[in-house]
Amino acid sequence: MPLTAANFPESKRTIRYVGLETISEPVKPHLDLLGQFMRGQVDDFEEETRELVTYCLKHSGKRIRPILLFYSGWTASQTGLHDLVKAAAVIELVHLATLVHDDILDEASLRHNESTVSEKFGPGIAVLLGDALFSQALKLASEFPTVEVCRAVSQSTRRVCAGEIGQSFERGNTALAVDDYYHIINYKTAELFYVSCHLGAKLAGYDDGFISAAGRFGRSLGIAYQIFDDIADFIGQEARIGKTLGTDVASGKFTLPLILLLRKLSRQEGKELVRSFHNGKPADIKGLNRLMAEKGIFDEVSQCFRREIETAEKAIAPFSDYAPYDHLKGISAYVKRQVEKFTWP
Amino acid sequence: MPLTAANFPESKRTIRYVGLETISEPVKPHLDLLGQFMRGQVDDFEEETRELVTYCLKHSGKRIRPILLFYSGWTASQTGLHDLVKAAAVIELVHLATLVHDDILDEASLRHNESTVSEKFGPGIAVLLGDALFSQALKLASEFPTVEVCRAVSQSTRRVCAGEIGQSFERGNTALAVDDYYHIINYKTAELFYVSCHLGAKLAGYDDGFISAAGRFGRSLGIAYQIFDDIADFIGQEARIGKTLGTDVASGKFTLPLILLLRKLSRQEGKELVRSFHNGKPADIKGLNRLMAEKGIFDEVSQCFRREIETAEKAIAPFSDYAPYDHLKGISAYVKRQVEKFTWP
Repeated sequence: MPLTAANFPESKRTIRYVGLETISEPVKPHLDLLGQFMRGQVDDFEEETRELVTYCLKHSGKRIRPILLFYSGWTASQTGLHDLVKAAAVIELVHLATLVHDDILDEASLRHNESTVSEKFGPGIAVLLGDALFSQALKLASEFPTVEVCRAVSQSTRRVCAGEIGQSFERGNTALAVDDYYHIINYKTAELFYVSCHLGAKLAGYDDGFISAAGRFGRSLGIAYQIFDDIADFIGQEARIGKTLGTDVASGKFTLPLILLLRKLSRQEGKELVRSFHNGKPADIKGLNRLMAEKGIFDEVSQCFRREIETAEKAIAPFSDYAPYDHLKGISAYVKRQVEKFTWP
Repeated sequence: MPLTAANFPESKRTIRYVGLETISEPVKPHLDLLGQFMRGQVDDFEEETRELVTYCLKHSGKRIRPILLFYSGWTASQTGLHDLVKAAAVIELVHLATLVHDDILDEASLRHNESTVSEKFGPGIAVLLGDALFSQALKLASEFPTVEVCRAVSQSTRRVCAGEIGQSFERGNTALAVDDYYHIINYKTAELFYVSCHLGAKLAGYDDGFISAAGRFGRSLGIAYQIFDDIADFIGQEARIGKTLGTDVASGKFTLPLILLLRKLSRQEGKELVRSFHNGKPADIKGLNRLMAEKGIFDEVSQCFRREIETAEKAIAPFSDYAPYDHLKGISAYVKRQVEKFTWP
């Protein structure tokens, strides 16, 4: 039975499903400060880089990582706000750098309906701009009194690269195991979610127990977020998710839905899927979706997704009397809602 | 009159001209430790990155930046050696990262007679590996007790990127002014020379006066080094400098020799030079060299080069009783010798 929003189990704690704007309402002042701070960063770059940085900053995206950081570091008194904003800027600059570089690898021409840096200024400039953004992120990180932020961010960034390298080496590999898939997305996506939550909790002065829990919350949420992103590549609505469907298939990324599908196919069907995937002419998305619905793949992927959301929520469950708790639950509910909103075939 | 080694003025202080091996003899133990330390870094990378890092480390290059760092931090007691080695590894990792990325931009297929990462594994992997190397550099930098190393290195790296971005934007610009040229090479090359000397002196605990002087020595030496590299692209011996001549011209880089040449040409001759340069079919190197010899360009470039060496040596002149002094003079003599060894047309 294909999964529908109707039979998607509610969280035990009743949270109204709302958009990210509502979820992020309490941190709107933080996000405004972050926006100001990021624009202020432009002047810190050398003259030859400024126009490029300004171009990159025009579209800020959803800023889910800064929101995670702000909520993990949420306190009643809101002290240390400046440090949280600076740390959020560090993470956003790293994230921006990875986007600029990813768009080279994916030969993507559009992001947020604007030409990518690679498309507009050439891949060479995109390589250098990503490097400059990353340098500035670490320069900002070094403005904290201790080396902690530098260490956490540089280590996480190295892992993000490892995830992307793993993914690149596995392009076109239809024998990718579920474990390998999780290993890749843990590095490439969940690592920055993790470090956002970790740093927020740490900078706010929370105890080690909560810092660790917040980090685990971020990691599982990040994995869920990537699973959502990978299923969205099949059944999302282009207008809503803002990108072309089927780009993963087109670029040889064998993601969770396909890994699970292949396991359900007969030898002959599997061979056909693999052949068409290798030919770079995968069955059209609609056909694949019909097949996945028939084999219960969407249900299976949703279970994987929900498992991560549950793990995330369990990590912070012992901290329900902490100021960040309700806010973090709000974000996990928001992420969960993304999958529930899908119209399943 | 074309300049020859014979009429190249000696430094006031008599230093025997010797190879880098002799110059670096006193820091051989340091370089060995650095080699060990760098190889040890491989394990710190995630599994998917290790083979690539090992490939990169196979050829270590001349390690002129570490040598500068070791000598700037030279003390009679050789205390704090471990910190110097770690800082040298940070700089070398940044330098390696920039090489891996430069080879993408230049579409270079060979470095040290081995395929470049971009050639062997593809430009996408090269982008990611450069990022991972840079992340690890900053991770290492964050292992120092204070944020100083992170700050200095991330700021310098951002400037290196700015220099490269400036250079990329100026590709094919035959109207490049001498000042613009210096501005670019100050960032793209001299900055890492500067930070190597600065960090060496700083970590060894020298006073601010010497730290500043060492930094200025490094910066001017770096500018001289790049001028050498740019003239070598015309008159070097391929076997000795280990790269194909004329690559700058081929990739549209209008460097100091051409900037100075253009100023000496008649309007008509200049137009011809610019036209052939823009067509991507510059006059053959031999023809250009004849023209440059005729117009005294090599002499002019040599003067520019010598001026930087002199500025470098002047910066440290007040510190002749400091332990690093003789060693740093040895390096500037070595760099000077590189240009003197040319057989001028």
